[in-house]
Amino acid sequence: MAKGMQALVKTEPGPGLAMMEVPIPEVGRRDCLVRVEATSICGTDLHIYRWDAWAASRLRPPLIVGHEFCGRVAAVGSDVTEVSVGDYVAGEGHLFCGRCYYCQTGQAHICAQGRIIGVDTDGCFAQYVRMPAANLWRLDDTVPPAIGAIHDPLGNAVHSVMAAGVSGASVAVVGCGPVGLCSIAVAKRAGASAVYGVDVNPYRLSLAQGLGADAVIRSDTDDPVESVKDLTGGLGAEVVLEMSGHPAGIRAAFEMLRKGGRIVLLGIPPGPVQADLTSWIIFKEARVLGINGRRIFETWHRMAELLRSGLDVSSVVTHRFSLSEFEQAFAVLAEGRCGKIVLVT
Amino acid sequence: MAKGMQALVKTEPGPGLAMMEVPIPEVGRRDCLVRVEATSICGTDLHIYRWDAWAASRLRPPLIVGHEFCGRVAAVGSDVTEVSVGDYVAGEGHLFCGRCYYCQTGQAHICAQGRIIGVDTDGCFAQYVRMPAANLWRLDDTVPPAIGAIHDPLGNAVHSVMAAGVSGASVAVVGCGPVGLCSIAVAKRAGASAVYGVDVNPYRLSLAQGLGADAVIRSDTDDPVESVKDLTGGLGAEVVLEMSGHPAGIRAAFEMLRKGGRIVLLGIPPGPVQADLTSWIIFKEARVLGINGRRIFETWHRMAELLRSGLDVSSVVTHRFSLSEFEQAFAVLAEGRCGKIVLVT
Amino acid sequence: MAKGMQALVKTEPGPGLAMMEVPIPEVGRRDCLVRVEATSICGTDLHIYRWDAWAASRLRPPLIVGHEFCGRVAAVGSDVTEVSVGDYVAGEGHLFCGRCYYCQTGQAHICAQGRIIGVDTDGCFAQYVRMPAANLWRLDDTVPPAIGAIHDPLGNAVHSVMAAGVSGASVAVVGCGPVGLCSIAVAKRAGASAVYGVDVNPYRLSLAQGLGADAVIRSDTDDPVESVKDLTGGLGAEVVLEMSGHPAGIRAAFEMLRKGGRIVLLGIPPGPVQADLTSWIIFKEARVLGINGRRIFETWHRMAELLRSGLDVSSVVTHRFSLSEFEQAFAVLAEGRCGKIVLVT
Amino acid sequence: MAKGMQALVKTEPGPGLAMMEVPIPEVGRRDCLVRVEATSICGTDLHIYRWDAWAASRLRPPLIVGHEFCGRVAAVGSDVTEVSVGDYVAGEGHLFCGRCYYCQTGQAHICAQGRIIGVDTDGCFAQYVRMPAANLWRLDDTVPPAIGAIHDPLGNAVHSVMAAGVSGASVAVVGCGPVGLCSIAVAKRAGASAVYGVDVNPYRLSLAQGLGADAVIRSDTDDPVESVKDLTGGLGAEVVLEMSGHPAGIRAAFEMLRKGGRIVLLGIPPGPVQADLTSWIIFKEARVLGINGRRIFETWHRMAELLRSGLDVSSVVTHRFSLSEFEQAFAVLAEGRCGKIVLVT
Repeated sequence: MAKGMQALVKTEPGPGLAMMEVPIPEVGRRDCLVRVEATSICGTDLHIYRWDAWAASRLRPPLIVGHEFCGRVAAVGSDVTEVSVGDYVAGEGHLFCGRCYYCQTGQAHICAQGRIIGVDTDGCFAQYVRMPAANLWRLDDTVPPAIGAIHDPLGNAVHSVMAAGVSGASVAVVGCGPVGLCSIAVAKRAGASAVYGVDVNPYRLSLAQGLGADAVIRSDTDDPVESVKDLTGGLGAEVVLEMSGHPAGIRAAFEMLRKGGRIVLLGIPPGPVQADLTSWIIFKEARVLGINGRRIFETWHRMAELLRSGLDVSSVVTHRFSLSEFEQAFAVLAEGRCGKIVLVT
Repeated sequence: MAKGMQALVKTEPGPGLAMMEVPIPEVGRRDCLVRVEATSICGTDLHIYRWDAWAASRLRPPLIVGHEFCGRVAAVGSDVTEVSVGDYVAGEGHLFCGRCYYCQTGQAHICAQGRIIGVDTDGCFAQYVRMPAANLWRLDDTVPPAIGAIHDPLGNAVHSVMAAGVSGASVAVVGCGPVGLCSIAVAKRAGASAVYGVDVNPYRLSLAQGLGADAVIRSDTDDPVESVKDLTGGLGAEVVLEMSGHPAGIRAAFEMLRKGGRIVLLGIPPGPVQADLTSWIIFKEARVLGINGRRIFETWHRMAELLRSGLDVSSVVTHRFSLSEFEQAFAVLAEGRCGKIVLVT
Repeated sequence: MAKGMQALVKTEPGPGLAMMEVPIPEVGRRDCLVRVEATSICGTDLHIYRWDAWAASRLRPPLIVGHEFCGRVAAVGSDVTEVSVGDYVAGEGHLFCGRCYYCQTGQAHICAQGRIIGVDTDGCFAQYVRMPAANLWRLDDTVPPAIGAIHDPLGNAVHSVMAAGVSGASVAVVGCGPVGLCSIAVAKRAGASAVYGVDVNPYRLSLAQGLGADAVIRSDTDDPVESVKDLTGGLGAEVVLEMSGHPAGIRAAFEMLRKGGRIVLLGIPPGPVQADLTSWIIFKEARVLGINGRRIFETWHRMAELLRSGLDVSSVVTHRFSLSEFEQAFAVLAEGRCGKIVLVT
Repeated sequence: MAKGMQALVKTEPGPGLAMMEVPIPEVGRRDCLVRVEATSICGTDLHIYRWDAWAASRLRPPLIVGHEFCGRVAAVGSDVTEVSVGDYVAGEGHLFCGRCYYCQTGQAHICAQGRIIGVDTDGCFAQYVRMPAANLWRLDDTVPPAIGAIHDPLGNAVHSVMAAGVSGASVAVVGCGPVGLCSIAVAKRAGASAVYGVDVNPYRLSLAQGLGADAVIRSDTDDPVESVKDLTGGLGAEVVLEMSGHPAGIRAAFEMLRKGGRIVLLGIPPGPVQADLTSWIIFKEARVLGINGRRIFETWHRMAELLRSGLDVSSVVTHRFSLSEFEQAFAVLAEGRCGKIVLVT
């Protein structure tokens, strides 16, 4: 095997990324080396690319970025028995210690020492990525690489939908970015009685329709709260998934929620939000569920079961580039006329 | 209004029923009189018709039988404000006191003084039935009478499926009588990843397929436990709905259940069953859910939501007769080559 | 029976209340007249007394105020069978329609047409109060009137604690007003591993200790977040009950919550709050439960069971006055050196 | 360190055990060697001692028996970082693979390849026991060795009580062997409103009282079903924990359960049981929870929290012997006039 590989690196504090040759990582006894076949860009990666305040406070360059990927196992450490060279795998990007209170109580995804690849340690925008064997997930061969690459955000959607409980319930999804779009398809497949997509972006609303939304609401021209109430017999949605992170979206999400309903918060707002806790939560007896990452590996098993049963999120992926075309990919993402962008390596 | 009506009456202890003219019931202040448009026959009615040991111990003739129906409100008592004359309604056949511990804690369907129409008090195999206003459920006009008439067993199915939780889960339905058939359609609509129907009756298995079963298993020629394990990667079904009431079906149901899985018991066995609690429940950490009736009106709201969202159980109804053809209807039911039989009045 | 009674009336928009003679209410067929034996003052009553913006927007004088009481049934309407003259009862102050979606799905406490006695209709600061029979709760004779009178706030506490789930869990109660104080005793009796009381008021913290708090934290002199973390091995409390309604208390409540923990919001903040949803809820995977009123009558049955099992909240009641001493009672409440104030009629 | 140790060995198929010198186990890279300080005898060990049909079908002698213990870490494998030499630990006796569907979904205690020490592999009735580091639990120094030794059955009790949910609920414990006795204390500490102990053995009922039972019922002289109904206002217990494994106990357990109640099955009956599923489960809408082992390590964390909060099960341990007095210990156990028997090594 060659010693070097191409990787997308944040070389120093500041905007931009550099494609460069770096050494192929060495694997420890419990690690694997994965030949990346496809990787996808997260909103987080755009924050890192632009080097905003959050990125500046968290990252310590130099660092290979990227955390969503799939590929083939290229090498395994001496103690690895879970996977073998040649296995087709996706990766859980949240590294966990395995020993803290959270890891020992089935909550490894919120591990006390949790770190994220591509943020706290080298990531997957590269030809190879090193992963603990405990973070790899074997994919069915029937899963195309573009879908394997987006298992992380698809997992966010599955975790959100399963936590909320959607069987026979009306569901409003506020924010039709990639996780919102996946959530529309997942909620439909998981038995929602109806799913409504809300966004300001007509392109994304058309994707929402393609993924099965029963109705879409353009929130800059229609009142999303009144629209959802109209669609639900005046009661509001039984379940709301807030995936925009916009203060106006968050307000609308709470206001369109039925009394006694369940609301997931997943979209990250840019800062503190003026929250009317009394009418949003207290008088309404809302059940609010913060969602972070994916349950390891409960969510992954559920995701596999849903994919086997026909869940189709292929239309979430709207653009494909090679890794070297990363500048173009980030430009498309910044513009917003896209779903998920996959980079083939 | 006429004073008399045609009704199907158990006139005295013993087999058979008699069609006869009886007085139209008078309504109390909180009651309604419903003009029955369609009614359907339950397995319970066959027990009553045949006058088995259970029927002999429970019924006190003379009694108008039948408990599944829909129709139009024909008269209302002076204190009734929930419904109006002309309203299209189905009826919750479990009468409840409204004041006991169960009624006061959201469990009116298992009321301490619970009685069932057509079993403990006059029923609906008649031109008119008297019902407490509190037991009526307004139907959407889009619901055909044959579906309105089977809201009671459909409600059993909805209650079972919602209690078990089927989102993204494999579901085996053991026993494809009317409630089992409804459950197949409900489980699919409510988000099961796959639904498997199990029965000895090929006619009913073909109905199961028509209602959306991903696979059907003829348990007299194929091993249902091995079949379900094969279909579920060796694990067994995450959810099993036992709707046969046959000792062999019950055994198979527990054995095909995944460890940690959820099993609903709804089918009534003819007597005590030799139960291997150790391997069926304890070592497996099974969660067993007894299901009786329907939650009032939580299940009914969920049922309406599912019907509005496209749940289609029309093929469960395989036969229609007029009320006067009841002998023929019971003969078809006894033979078993049927789904649900509706009687039009 | 006399025609007139003494009552505390908001006669017109503006501060203050007037003790005056008014007619004894007449009872409808489904109503009861209750001779009030004891009534207690809620923070809501202080808002009404002072006539703040909320009171001005909600109340339509003239109105008898007060919503917490117990007493003896003095007269019953012709259709009432639930209770009899002479029965010792407390009252559920939330009036409900019985027919809306919420009432029909076990959520009558958040009825679509919900109204509150003493706010939207005449209340209980009087010798007699008219109540629907459906809102009365029969008390065990062993319950002293001062405890019967505070069943409404005690019910808030029971609903909060049962919704959160406290068995074997550490619980922090932020805000040691009457509901917070009741919650401390209820959480201890319901199996919390430890309960910590947080307030700025040393008088109330001493009451918290008397009600069983394992530790109390004076949040103006000690850092409540660090204190609770120190008491919980660095993890934070598994359950937090926010009962202060103060923005600083709300912030502290979220910050002292363990990742994956459960937080009840019950205290009503004076307006919107700057909420850091990302760190309070999303990254923490918090489960936030809005609590309003009490489940009817699930919470009441649980409350009775807890009282029978030894729950003792008698020290929550720190002051007793006669109804005519109301000015003095409101002055004590405004000053804050009190738990619950009971008015004997 | 010496090469040999004393151990209690099933040397060949048949009744009895032999105390003999065997080699001290060697530890693998992920294993630890624990110097056993105290170990306790389970009912399972008596089955093995007597060599009943179950034992004959499951065990492959020669084998060191015993699975409940605590001690000090004496040696660690090269890859062990969780614990250090000298640490005070108890052991989770269920070995798990860490990779199967169950292990990956938070259900390692029902691992597809689960094995039990002292049954499927060498156990802890010895001076030393080899354990995977992943199966060790660090004990607080304040936990006496006799309590550390019974963490396995205490964990059964904690898992049962937490699965059932006992806050503010009446609880009947059928069968007051060691797990039943622990359950009484755990249920009280976890917030049960009342706990009733049921057994035929007056000695064990007196232990039940000492552990906090509000009432005890001698089921050979009193009707346990009627007694529990009398104690619960006629409703029956909201929660029943079946820990006897006796067919008559199982019948009584189901019959004393309130409609809509929750029943744990943990006691292993000697064979299939004649089960009246209709009245026990279906018409009652019972929720039946099979319990096996302990959640790893969710139950252990809860157990530690309960112990820190004052849970006291020391009176469950009624006898102490040295390991060499095993014949005497098994004789006491066979006779039944005991709680838990601890062997000090």
